[in-house]
Amino acid sequence: MAFKIRAGEQKDMDSVLQLVSELAVFEKEPNAVKINVDDLVHNGFKKNPSFFTFVAETEGIIAGMALFYNRFSTWDGPSIHLEDLIVTEKFRGRGIGKALYDKVLKDALQKGIKRVEWVVLDWNTPAVDFYKRTGATVFEEWNICQISNKKIEEYLSKK
Amino acid sequence: MAFKIRAGEQKDMDSVLQLVSELAVFEKEPNAVKINVDDLVHNGFKKNPSFFTFVAETEGIIAGMALFYNRFSTWDGPSIHLEDLIVTEKFRGRGIGKALYDKVLKDALQKGIKRVEWVVLDWNTPAVDFYKRTGATVFEEWNICQISNKKIEEYLSKK
Repeated sequence: MAFKIRAGEQKDMDSVLQLVSELAVFEKEPNAVKINVDDLVHNGFKKNPSFFTFVAETEGIIAGMALFYNRFSTWDGPSIHLEDLIVTEKFRGRGIGKALYDKVLKDALQKGIKRVEWVVLDWNTPAVDFYKRTGATVFEEWNICQISNKKIEEYLSKK
Repeated sequence: MAFKIRAGEQKDMDSVLQLVSELAVFEKEPNAVKINVDDLVHNGFKKNPSFFTFVAETEGIIAGMALFYNRFSTWDGPSIHLEDLIVTEKFRGRGIGKALYDKVLKDALQKGIKRVEWVVLDWNTPAVDFYKRTGATVFEEWNICQISNKKIEEYLSKK
């Protein structure tokens, strides 16, 4: 079955949000998605977009997508962060995920980016194994820290 | 001893690079820093800067710095990534690190950012404990994946 990888457009953001939500369920955080379609349209299509997407289209349906943006490494210089990569369940096993992954890497290379980075859940061994096979390194020593705006307010108000 | 926290300027990038290098040594990756001062000046002071800094100045010396940039979370929306936070050894224990951390959080809050994110090495328990005390969550289940431009070239050429 044929599919086409292309840059995501405003009209795709409904599908992108659905895919984000499907990924959150897979990641056992079904209530984590607080953004809406307007947030995606506003932040992804303003003058200096906060992110970019590639979508995989087949039979007029958005079957998968990759969402990414620029970062800056003080070791390597300009880098790309791949925030989300997902293919909807019905269309898995057809090479769509790999095609999206390859497209992000190829695009990064063409832009002169020094590295591409993303995160993976340690129990998602099929993904971990796939990434390692492509030449990626998985770092277990680094832990991610996050503080929400609510927690920042609490912390700063205590002082 | 008094110190001042202010936005980093082009003239500070020499000191910023020295601090980046000092942090890399602390992180047991002394040869990891591939960028130079020109990379910092170019990327940090172009039209849409790739990063921003706050520096701590005392006795005319840059004693510490925080380097950060915008990211986009598909769960929470606009976020800030704190890439590096370091105080040079000689000036530690005087509250400069905390002042830089607080400044980044306060600035994020003022900009309406939904969360601030960074990474920490799991053996750096003083840092982990400090972050937790401020209300941050440390995630051990997520692992960071990276692929360099060299590895991307190898991977894409095999196909």
